Amino acid sequence: MRPELLERALSLLPTAASHPELARYFAMLRDYPIRGGKGIRSELLLASAGAHGVGVGTAAWERALWLATALELFQNWVLIHDDIEDDSEERRGQPALHRLHGVALAINAGDALHAYMWAAVHRAGVPGAMEEFLAMIHRTAEGQHLDLAWVERREWTLKEADYLQMVSLKTAHYTVIVPLRLGALAAGLAPDERFTAAGLALGAAFQIRDDVLNLLGDPAKYGKEIGGDLLEGKRTLIVLHWLQTASAEQKDIFLEQMHLGRPAKDAATIADIHRWLLDSGSVAYAQAYADAQAKAGIALLEQALQDAPDQTAAARLVGAVRELASREA
Amino acid sequence: MRPELLERALSLLPTAASHPELARYFAMLRDYPIRGGKGIRSELLLASAGAHGVGVGTAAWERALWLATALELFQNWVLIHDDIEDDSEERRGQPALHRLHGVALAINAGDALHAYMWAAVHRAGVPGAMEEFLAMIHRTAEGQHLDLAWVERREWTLKEADYLQMVSLKTAHYTVIVPLRLGALAAGLAPDERFTAAGLALGAAFQIRDDVLNLLGDPAKYGKEIGGDLLEGKRTLIVLHWLQTASAEQKDIFLEQMHLGRPAKDAATIADIHRWLLDSGSVAYAQAYADAQAKAGIALLEQALQDAPDQTAAARLVGAVRELASREA
Repeated sequence: MRPELLERALSLLPTAASHPELARYFAMLRDYPIRGGKGIRSELLLASAGAHGVGVGTAAWERALWLATALELFQNWVLIHDDIEDDSEERRGQPALHRLHGVALAINAGDALHAYMWAAVHRAGVPGAMEEFLAMIHRTAEGQHLDLAWVERREWTLKEADYLQMVSLKTAHYTVIVPLRLGALAAGLAPDERFTAAGLALGAAFQIRDDVLNLLGDPAKYGKEIGGDLLEGKRTLIVLHWLQTASAEQKDIFLEQMHLGRPAKDAATIADIHRWLLDSGSVAYAQAYADAQAKAGIALLEQALQDAPDQTAAARLVGAVRELASREA
Repeated sequence: MRPELLERALSLLPTAASHPELARYFAMLRDYPIRGGKGIRSELLLASAGAHGVGVGTAAWERALWLATALELFQNWVLIHDDIEDDSEERRGQPALHRLHGVALAINAGDALHAYMWAAVHRAGVPGAMEEFLAMIHRTAEGQHLDLAWVERREWTLKEADYLQMVSLKTAHYTVIVPLRLGALAAGLAPDERFTAAGLALGAAFQIRDDVLNLLGDPAKYGKEIGGDLLEGKRTLIVLHWLQTASAEQKDIFLEQMHLGRPAKDAATIADIHRWLLDSGSVAYAQAYADAQAKAGIALLEQALQDAPDQTAAARLVGAVRELASREA
């Protein structure tokens, strides 16, 4: 994220501890923000604010910066809890917070960071922003529930439509729709309702791109473990597509591994499955699906932005979205 | 909690699920609120609103009801996460949420309920209330961190002052100080600063009373397992006092059990320790400490309320606090 967002986020967090153990707690709150995410969502928000006529350095820009800070804090508390829920090993190239401090302390730190997110929303003072954050959290939690419930129930007989519903809930709102809408609100404008359809398509495109990168990304660029989704038993469009064409033998081996908890999974067999997925046409299928969604989403976004006050900034926003859809990390 | 608070809480939560698995998620959100807590904190808030001149049925009373609803939602999301952090078995006489649905889904449901709490705060529309909830969550999370960190580090060489600092952070703000302050804010009045000192004393009194009840309460009335604090390895004033006087042999047995995770603890040995604690003077010591804190806190509260607009309601508030300090469940 931008240094000016990190600065704002850290300015909300406590520093002077009245007890030595609290110093560790305060460091836990700062840990994920300092690791530095890519800031995709806050950049979208700021680009949307620009397209809606908010000039850098104005009072409205300051409000947009606080909303962007809140979005980054959202991302950070959610990742702390996600990493526990998925039992992820790494985040942004370092051990996940609960692997450093245990599950109990990490849940608690995530809860506190959640509250600091609301402090940033409050600080922005933008009418309607609170409702956006509430809706975003509710949709994201619904999508997260579906995703986790399938892992818990060892449910693999899913249709692509199930996966796409999960993604639209879990990813589209917080990654695209709400950042676009918050940019309008920061400008004091009502968000164009077409952002929703654009964001649903783009959210699917971004998530599927992420699923693809998780299998064939460059470990030096991609902040998470390559193949981590397999170890965590995540449903992806790639896997659901592959399950339809895989041999009975490969399918049995896959399901057997997926029914094991992460520590019990066999690394060599997971590596085999990883190769089967790469060798099948399913990665290409998912990438083509993502490309089509990205194309449709960009067209919808261009329509939604056609009356935006700053057309130069609107074109930059569309360009940024286009880059995201084909990102390598 | 009062039916009118439960109604308001449930009115914020989703019901119509677009996916069968989401129906289960919605039921998880309603589960703890429906089990019905004692509503201690919301009653304090409403009693404080009354003392500050808010009459039942007025617009200010409606605002107080929404703040009280938010406080109940706070209690519920925090308990979902606490029960995971402590690996508690029961809550309000039924299995803890994570024991019914697993840790991952329960963390997620707690996060969503946290956001619904903010919806209730927002709905109340009381200036200054958001800051109160932010401060409350921050202090509570700091106290929770201390409590959990001591469990994680197997730290038993604590002074009473450490325990009391933890309690003032973890309990006093959300149980007493913030409910009292919110009652004033609902009336449109600035909270009396003396509520803080009163609440710190009363918070300690209530928490120590709870620690005492956890050891000698009536299982039919007390919603949690009797002796659960020992199984969870919680620090209490009782245990810290007892450790100073226990024989080397008993102390060794105690520390050996406390260094084991909950599933590895020996039930018969824990029952022995439970009896040693009851037979020692430490329960009486802690109860006497709690009684002194309650007495001091009530005196401070009476001072803070001496200019409150409704003195009849103020006297009822003090009476309710007095009852809480000597509660049996």
